[in-house]
Parts: sequence; C-alpha cells; structure tokens
Amino acid sequence: MPRKKKFPRESFVSMTELVLPNDTNTLNNLMGGRLMHWMDIVSAISAQKHSNRIVVTASVDNISFNHPIQLGNVVTLKARVTRAFNSSMEVRIDVEAEDIPTGKKTVSNSAYFTFVAVDQSGRPIDVPEIEPETDEDREYYNGALRRRQLRLILAGRMKPQDAHELKSIFNIE
Amino acid sequence: MPRKKKFPRESFVSMTELVLPNDTNTLNNLMGGRLMHWMDIVSAISAQKHSNRIVVTASVDNISFNHPIQLGNVVTLKARVTRAFNSSMEVRIDVEAEDIPTGKKTVSNSAYFTFVAVDQSGRPIDVPEIEPETDEDREYYNGALRRRQLRLILAGRMKPQDAHELKSIFNIE
Amino acid sequence: MPRKKKFPRESFVSMTELVLPNDTNTLNNLMGGRLMHWMDIVSAISAQKHSNRIVVTASVDNISFNHPIQLGNVVTLKARVTRAFNSSMEVRIDVEAEDIPTGKKTVSNSAYFTFVAVDQSGRPIDVPEIEPETDEDREYYNGALRRRQLRLILAGRMKPQDAHELKSIFNIE
Amino acid sequence: MPRKKKFPRESFVSMTELVLPNDTNTLNNLMGGRLMHWMDIVSAISAQKHSNRIVVTASVDNISFNHPIQLGNVVTLKARVTRAFNSSMEVRIDVEAEDIPTGKKTVSNSAYFTFVAVDQSGRPIDVPEIEPETDEDREYYNGALRRRQLRLILAGRMKPQDAHELKSIFNIE
Amino acid sequence: MPRKKKFPRESFVSMTELVLPNDTNTLNNLMGGRLMHWMDIVSAISAQKHSNRIVVTASVDNISFNHPIQLGNVVTLKARVTRAFNSSMEVRIDVEAEDIPTGKKTVSNSAYFTFVAVDQSGRPIDVPEIEPETDEDREYYNGALRRRQLRLILAGRMKPQDAHELKSIFNIE
Amino acid sequence: MPRKKKFPRESFVSMTELVLPNDTNTLNNLMGGRLMHWMDIVSAISAQKHSNRIVVTASVDNISFNHPIQLGNVVTLKARVTRAFNSSMEVRIDVEAEDIPTGKKTVSNSAYFTFVAVDQSGRPIDVPEIEPETDEDREYYNGALRRRQLRLILAGRMKPQDAHELKSIFNIE
Repeated sequence: MPRKKKFPRESFVSMTELVLPNDTNTLNNLMGGRLMHWMDIVSAISAQKHSNRIVVTASVDNISFNHPIQLGNVVTLKARVTRAFNSSMEVRIDVEAEDIPTGKKTVSNSAYFTFVAVDQSGRPIDVPEIEPETDEDREYYNGALRRRQLRLILAGRMKPQDAHELKSIFNIE
Repeated sequence: MPRKKKFPRESFVSMTELVLPNDTNTLNNLMGGRLMHWMDIVSAISAQKHSNRIVVTASVDNISFNHPIQLGNVVTLKARVTRAFNSSMEVRIDVEAEDIPTGKKTVSNSAYFTFVAVDQSGRPIDVPEIEPETDEDREYYNGALRRRQLRLILAGRMKPQDAHELKSIFNIE
Repeated sequence: MPRKKKFPRESFVSMTELVLPNDTNTLNNLMGGRLMHWMDIVSAISAQKHSNRIVVTASVDNISFNHPIQLGNVVTLKARVTRAFNSSMEVRIDVEAEDIPTGKKTVSNSAYFTFVAVDQSGRPIDVPEIEPETDEDREYYNGALRRRQLRLILAGRMKPQDAHELKSIFNIE
Repeated sequence: MPRKKKFPRESFVSMTELVLPNDTNTLNNLMGGRLMHWMDIVSAISAQKHSNRIVVTASVDNISFNHPIQLGNVVTLKARVTRAFNSSMEVRIDVEAEDIPTGKKTVSNSAYFTFVAVDQSGRPIDVPEIEPETDEDREYYNGALRRRQLRLILAGRMKPQDAHELKSIFNIE
Repeated sequence: MPRKKKFPRESFVSMTELVLPNDTNTLNNLMGGRLMHWMDIVSAISAQKHSNRIVVTASVDNISFNHPIQLGNVVTLKARVTRAFNSSMEVRIDVEAEDIPTGKKTVSNSAYFTFVAVDQSGRPIDVPEIEPETDEDREYYNGALRRRQLRLILAGRMKPQDAHELKSIFNIE
Repeated sequence: MPRKKKFPRESFVSMTELVLPNDTNTLNNLMGGRLMHWMDIVSAISAQKHSNRIVVTASVDNISFNHPIQLGNVVTLKARVTRAFNSSMEVRIDVEAEDIPTGKKTVSNSAYFTFVAVDQSGRPIDVPEIEPETDEDREYYNGALRRRQLRLILAGRMKPQDAHELKSIFNIE
C-alpha cells in the first residue's frame, strides 16, 4: 500500500519573535544560540504538522550567520518540510530580520533541520511522503538527497564513495 | 612579527546544566534547540577566553542528536578552541549527560562552532594562533582545515575542486 | 495634504508558540496571562509594521477565554491593524490552538488591542490611515468606531449619550 | 441551604514586581503584555483564596494603560474578589508603580478579571458569595452587576435590551 | 545634625509568587535557590523603600529550609528593615506557603539579608535610622546587633573576643 | 558494616554562566539572588554526584558579597562535598568572575550549602562518607564540624554550651 502524500505547504509554519535584551550579546546583536533555539521550535512544529506525530530533532546541517540581527528587530522564521524518508523529515527554515522604524528587511540565513517521528514510547514511525508542487518545492526536494548523503557521511554512517548524489557537487565522475 | 600562540587548554570551559521541565518536549526529552543554545554560550565563552575579545557566532557545523537526554539529567558541556584562522576560531564542544540516581553517563554528541573576534564597532580583529600540545589537540587541529573547507564550500565561498584537504575524505586523488 | 493609506494585509503578522510546562496551570491548561502576553507582542509588531514607529499599548478590549488550550498544543496568533485614528491603531488578534497528534484545531478567541505610535521622546505621532480591501476588512473597519466609543466611555472620556455608533448595539434611537 | 459568605479582604493579595530589562520595550517602558501577565497571576491567586479551588481565567474587562511604567520601577498589584456569581468570581486589580529613588508613586491603572472555579476534571463548581464590608466593597459589589451585563453582551450571550443595570450608564429609561 | 528616622512598617513589602514547574526539583518541591532569588528581590525592594537609594546585597545570614514547598503552592514573602547602620540595612524576610485547595498555610522560614545603599557611582551613602515601634520591632532591632557581630566575625572583620553582644548566646561572661 | 567512602573530587562540579541583562540591577551588577540561585544548582548537582540520590537544600551558611560582578562577565562556580553526616552533606562553592576583554579575574566569594539525600517519598537516606585526600580537603573537612555546630545553634537545635568545636573560634576554654 503506497504511503500517503502531503504538499510542503501543508507543513508551512511562520513564527515571529521580537529581539529582547536577554537575547543579545554586548554588541546588542542577537546571539546565535537563541536563533537556533527558535529555529528548532519552528521546524519541530512544521515536522509535527506534516506527520501528526511527536518528533525529535535528529540533526542540524551547517548554518552560517552572516548578518547580525539587532536588539528590537522583528525576526520572522518560515519553515516547511522539504522531503520525508521513512520516519525522518528534512525541514528548511528561512530567517528574515526587520528593523521596523526604517522598514529595512534583511535575509538573515536559512537552515536545514532533520526530525524523526516517534510513537509514545519513542520508537520511529513512518510519515507521509512529500509531493513537491512548485519549482522551489522541487529544487528543495531534489537537493534533500544530496544533503542527506552529506549528513550520513559526516555521522560516519555512509562511505563517501557511495554518495553518488553528493559527488556531483565535487564535479567528479 | 609572528602572532602570539596559546594552547587549547587555555580556552577550556566546562558548563553544567540541569534539565528542567521547560527544556523538554512531551516525551520529557531535552529539546535540541535548548541544547544548541547552551552549546553556543559555552563555546562563545571559550572563544572569548582565547581571544580576549567580543566574539560573534559565524557558523555551526552539522550536529547529530543520537541519544535522548532526560528531564532531571545533568548535562556537562566542555569546550575548547581547536584552531584559529586570522580573526576566526573553531571551537569543539563535547556534551555528556548523566542520570545521577543510577550514575549512568551518556556521551551525547559533539559539535564545532566557529566564532569571529570583533572590536567595539563590530569589525573583525586578529586573534592568537593555536599551539596544539597533546595528540588529541593535534587531531582536532589537523581536522580543522578539512572542516573549514567544507564550511566554505557549503557557504558558496570555495570551489569544491579547490578543497584539497576535504577531498581526502572522499578517498579521491 | 492627505495622510498615506495602507492595507490591513500590510500589517499582517502570524506568530506561533508551543505551550510549555511553565505556561500552564495545575490542570495543564495555558494560563490566560501568558496568552495575553503573546497577544500583546504579536499586535505590537503589527502596529509597528503599519506605522513604522515605536508603539505603546494604550488599551485592551474585553477578552473571553472560552476554550482551554492544552500543554503541548501549538498556538497560532494572527494580527492585523483594522483602523487608525490619528496616532492610535486598533489591532485585531485571532487565536487558534492545534493539537498536532489529532490535527484538531480550535478557534480559541479573538481580541482587540489599541496602540499609540510615539517618537523617540515618547510623544504621539500620526500614522497612515487604513484602506479596507476585503469584506472582512470593511466589517472590522466599520466596527472599530463602535468599539472606540465603548473604550472612551469606559475610560470616562466620552459621555454615553454622545456615543451614536455604540447606541446601535442597544437597538436604541 | 444558603451558600457560605466571605469578605473581600479574605481574598486580598498583594504582589510586588521589579521591572527588569526583558520586561521593557525600546523606550525602557514596561510592556503591556507583561503587566497583564502579572495581573492574571495575582487575580488568579485571589480567586483561589476566595474559592479554595483551582480557577481558570474566564474573561478580562477593557483595560487602559495611561501612565508608562519605567525600567527599575517597583510595581505593586493588589487584588481582591468583588463579587461571586455561582461558579464565577470578579476580581479587581489595582496597579501602582513607584520610582524608589524619588519616592514618586503613580497609580497606573485598575482592571477586572473574571475566573471560574473548577474541580479536578475541569467542571465548574459553586463558590462562596461575597459579603461587602466597607463602602468601597459595596461600590465594587454593586458595579459588578453592570460590568457582568456588559461582558455577556460583548460575548453575545445577552441581548442589549435585557441589560437593565447597564442601561443606566447610558442614562436611558 | 541627627539622621532622619523611619519606622520598620515604612519599608514593609509583601510579595506573592506561584510555584511553577520550572521552580521545582524532581520531587515537585520548590528549589531553595529559587526561593533565595525571591527573598533577595523582596528584601532589596524593602531596603530601597527605607533608603530611597539603589542598594546592593552585602550578605545573607544562615538560612534553614525545613518545610518543603509544593508545586502549585502560593508563596508569600514579607520583608521589612529591622535596623540600619550608617550605609547598611538589615532586612528580615518571613516566608509562608499556602496550599490553596486545602487552605493549609505553612510557615516556611525566615531570613536576614543585609544591603548597602550606594550612589550612582556605587559608593556607600548614609541611610535613615530605624525607630522601632512595636514589641516585635524592638526584638528584631535589638537582635540585629548580635547578628551583625556574627556576620563580622564570619567575614573575618571582627575578633570573636570583641563580640560582646554575641557572647550572650553562648551564655558566657 | 562500614559506610562507603568517596573523595571530594568525585563530587566536583564546575559551572559557567554569562551575566545577562536580566540578571543585573540598575548599576549593571549581578544581583545577589541570581548568584545564590546558581550556587544552589551547582551545589545540588555536587551533592547528587556524591550520593547518587535526589537531594533537597537543607540550609545555607552566611554569605558575603564583597566584589560586584559586572554585566557581560563570565562567572565560574566550583562545588565539591566537604563532609557528610548520615543523610546530610556540606558542599563548598567557590565563585570567580572574569572580565574577558581585560582577562581580569576576581575571586568573588565562597559559600557552604547543606543538602539532605532523600528517597522517592522524600525520606532522608544515608550517604557515603567523605575521605579527604589533599591538605585543602582536610581543612574543609575539619572545619565542617564547627560550621555544623553553628548551624544547629542558629536553628535552635543545639545548646551553645555544647558546641565544643565552635567555642574554639571564640578562644574560650
């Protein structure tokens, strides 16, 4: 019996946070750890929406912090599931910061978190597949395989020479 | 004039946290976002100790969460700078959880965070180099080059074919 | 010179929160005070978006809490400015709770918060007018006058007999 | 059998809070949402004292925020039950802010919260009646009927023409 | 010129807190550290009221925790200045816990905190003296001298043989 | 059967905290109550490590706060059990603050907390004895008896004339 399919937009979640004094360092910039805490919450909610299950964070891909976010800024985090593999789901999070008085918006960064759906006793359980709808959906869906191979290699669970999708980024073969 | 050198142990920081109800999900497990928040604080303090400067989080490498940490557990995070590149520092964090009543300790995971030292106006500023002392120090120091190339490729700032150190993990050349 | 006009959708903000243990009472229900705290943040951000100014909470209309929200639920708060009067803005907030495992959504309640836009020294400053676009926009826009009269009467700043709009709800005149 | 009666002073609660950085906006003024959070806690404790039951917030009346409260101020919230109706209780909260170095006290505002007493399974349960003692007690006790009618009308549970007590504020009949 | 005098009741402060999940250990009892945090806030406010100055915590006397306080209990902390010495003030805090459903009140414990009044640059500054009014006031006022000598001895600033007041508790001389 | 013995270093715990805005007073100094909260957590973890039991705070000895700790400082708290008496353990905590940009470290203060090990129903239960190893261990171990007598006298559970160890600090006998 084929698994149920869901669209990425069905797991879309938008979260808005105000940068308060305790979230900042001595330069009045948002600390990276607080932002990752928010990323984890919004992406966990997204994975829950896709799977209608309790989810646990399995891994976080490399994240870059290029643009400092200031005290008083409004931070918007948008998350959606990009692809599902048996019991695991990859979620993409896009972060944007806005300085309200000037109306200036900055694309802060994006990140990929992976979650595993579990039952009440914590055992992995299968989730619906993802059916990409838009061009952007398809781009994220296709890239998910490559990112997954990198995750498995970095976790020591896949041999690099078996990572056919990943090799393409090294222009090999 | 050669840059000052410091040992990894000079930036060693140990942080202990108790897992409280608000840190956990409905399975009473520590949420990944809270753990990353703690990782960011302990590694920022380590980078500050190495550089005697204000530091900002530049990037986080891929992190895996393999072992759930329970409510009431004591979490110990140990951080030290593994290598410095001009104004940036790579910090390794090792996380261990302990269930006190049984005395059972679990190696939770490890992670690499990168920080940039900045002056009061937020401009990057050079930091001391790292002088590895022990075999472990040297292992982390040597691996830092490979991890840095992966970071630069993933951030789109290096061409994969130029990542000579990284290629070795793919058993190529 | 006519004041600038903006659509309600330009100040639309969506905020998502997870109900954690410290947000709940001994029945494991979300405490009303925590929900109002979230309502204040999301509506302040909405008023800031409309006015591109610092805003201060001026008043809160009567709020009913009819449906308990459970620990672990995902709460979505949606806010938009419904009408502006010189320096003040009325914001409507709609709250929905979702129990993820069952996918059951509950319309929790709605509320109206009023904000005043101020300059750096805290003095009121004019904001753009609202241009209603949809039928719903117009319904909220028209009702705003009636709600404003009730606010002014309850604050002792308007005589009840002068509240022509409000009288209609009493089927008088 | 007549219900037990209790005096308003038996449910009197005084709560003191210090305004900390995270409680304030960019003008260093206490945010309205934080104040409402405190109002909810102090009035819930007051309703619990009157009923010796678990209580849930049922509604909040219109609140005005006229006087900004500064960072570092000491906020005193005083609550007492003004009247009980079967399982519900109206609680009045008076808020005062004090700037300690100058000793200047500001009456910030007052508010009415309504709570319902419930048993362990969340079902409403009768509470003692209120026996007003002082002139002030009687003033709040009498006004409670009028405020209740307004609440019921605003919640769509009473027809305006049946609100005999409320009509008096419109100088009608 | 004689220093101004104030009564203990002029610095009286009452603070009420609800014990929430994050305040408790795995036995669902209030953690001692959270209670001391509240004691420090209520007594600092009391010392500020007496002195109309910024105050800093100088010392805390021995505190015993004899009666566990449960999750959901209402904790009332009452503080007042008992005696002033130049720039320092001793504050007594009495803590009581109440289990609302049963109405059972428990006298938890009492404590003495000492504060120093300082000016904007942090330098000690004289405060009004205490004029005891009631028998209880006088008891606390007289005992303050003995407690002060013990504090000075424990801090290594007084020789035990010079502590004439303190010796009386050892029934010596 | 003799009780098991453990060394002080087996219960050693190091905790590092960053002083954030909400931890400070209007002079930007760490509030004493927050520091005591941290002291309680680190020493409870130490007592748990020694006893492998749930522990509850029994008492806190006199603490002096001599050196203000600034916003942005890194605070290191080091705890170890100094001596055990049946079910109770004395823990010594040493606090150090560091201003990272200047590298200046300040010994803030030290404190003694006492904990009781309990079983799941909250009843006291015996813990291992302490075997001092170093000269410092022995100094703390011997002093523990004197501090315990002072605690018992101050709690009204011992007559001063029976406190033979304590009398020595008064140069009596």
